[in-house]
Amino acid sequence: MATADHRSTEVLEQLAALLEQRKGAEAGSSYVASLYQKGRAKIAQKVGEEGVEVALAAVGDDRDELINEMADLWFHSLVLLADANLTPADVLDELERRFGLSGLEEKARRAQD
Amino acid sequence: MATADHRSTEVLEQLAALLEQRKGAEAGSSYVASLYQKGRAKIAQKVGEEGVEVALAAVGDDRDELINEMADLWFHSLVLLADANLTPADVLDELERRFGLSGLEEKARRAQD
Amino acid sequence: MATADHRSTEVLEQLAALLEQRKGAEAGSSYVASLYQKGRAKIAQKVGEEGVEVALAAVGDDRDELINEMADLWFHSLVLLADANLTPADVLDELERRFGLSGLEEKARRAQD
Amino acid sequence: MATADHRSTEVLEQLAALLEQRKGAEAGSSYVASLYQKGRAKIAQKVGEEGVEVALAAVGDDRDELINEMADLWFHSLVLLADANLTPADVLDELERRFGLSGLEEKARRAQD
Repeated sequence: MATADHRSTEVLEQLAALLEQRKGAEAGSSYVASLYQKGRAKIAQKVGEEGVEVALAAVGDDRDELINEMADLWFHSLVLLADANLTPADVLDELERRFGLSGLEEKARRAQD
Repeated sequence: MATADHRSTEVLEQLAALLEQRKGAEAGSSYVASLYQKGRAKIAQKVGEEGVEVALAAVGDDRDELINEMADLWFHSLVLLADANLTPADVLDELERRFGLSGLEEKARRAQD
Repeated sequence: MATADHRSTEVLEQLAALLEQRKGAEAGSSYVASLYQKGRAKIAQKVGEEGVEVALAAVGDDRDELINEMADLWFHSLVLLADANLTPADVLDELERRFGLSGLEEKARRAQD
Repeated sequence: MATADHRSTEVLEQLAALLEQRKGAEAGSSYVASLYQKGRAKIAQKVGEEGVEVALAAVGDDRDELINEMADLWFHSLVLLADANLTPADVLDELERRFGLSGLEEKARRAQD
């Protein structure tokens, strides 16, 4: 189990920035460029398919395979968000709102004072 | 489009910590506790199903629905990781490794010097 | 393993006819009526979700569960076809065309003469 | 909309028989042989993925695409059943049992007398 640190938490934003940069690239230049070229429905399909692969990996015994499939799922999720002109922060803000995490964080900070 | 900031990037880790805490809770006490109780295959099924919902939302016109479904997908992904004793950092490290993001970040830092 | 007989091969057509009849029914009157009421996207979502459940059942050890989930998948497939004003025969004709089955059948008949 | 006739209703059984015959074939000899070679989890994954494709096709406007994707889904369902030593009749019997279709058919026959 990897330790959560500040470095790794920035990965989603860095990757989203990278995906944003690739938007103008030619279809043949990279896998991401070819995904954008195929369009929204095909990127959506990839996310659905990766969800199936994660589910199957999760009932198997291979931890590395689950990590790999989850990385595929999150990666294609980010491509889909980029294609829809959304960011990871849009999703993370929604999760924060649902679970009152900013409130929790604020309480934690006050408790430290 | 929300602006990416430091606060929001910590959401995955905070949520993972919350999910870890809920592991000992009684099945009836929360939605998460009931998911753990149902076991790995049912949590895996939820991730697969949310992948389908994200795909369908992505070909629709409603941005809020896509954000909501993606939040559902990421949330159930985190529950699945917690159930398998994995963390978001395990997945983010894999993404970082694939895309050489730590290298990019290092280059960016040196460029700022 | 059930033996294939003439009776069972007519099930898809009978079920499709039943689903066609239910189209005018009130939403509260049956599960099928409520599916039609929810509309195309929700019926499509059910088919996608049942695909996930079949996949997970198929890697398990319970034959009855696989049969049950496959029955769910085929049933919701038929509801989706009905909602789109298509029939099982439209799909079976396509399968027949792809695999040249009518040709095979014809050859088999001539071989029996 | 194709008319349902006796010929087309036998397609599932014919196709299942064809799939049964291919079980002994070498992996390189056909698409079906390569699926068997990859094993249960990969065939299961294909069914899950085809479910996603059907769902997306169903919310689009192209009837032929929906028919094609449904044919893909049913075809891979049959491969999965064959790999698990099950038949279409196992699934059709379950559907018949659920919906009391054999009863309906019997009533229809008596009404004709």
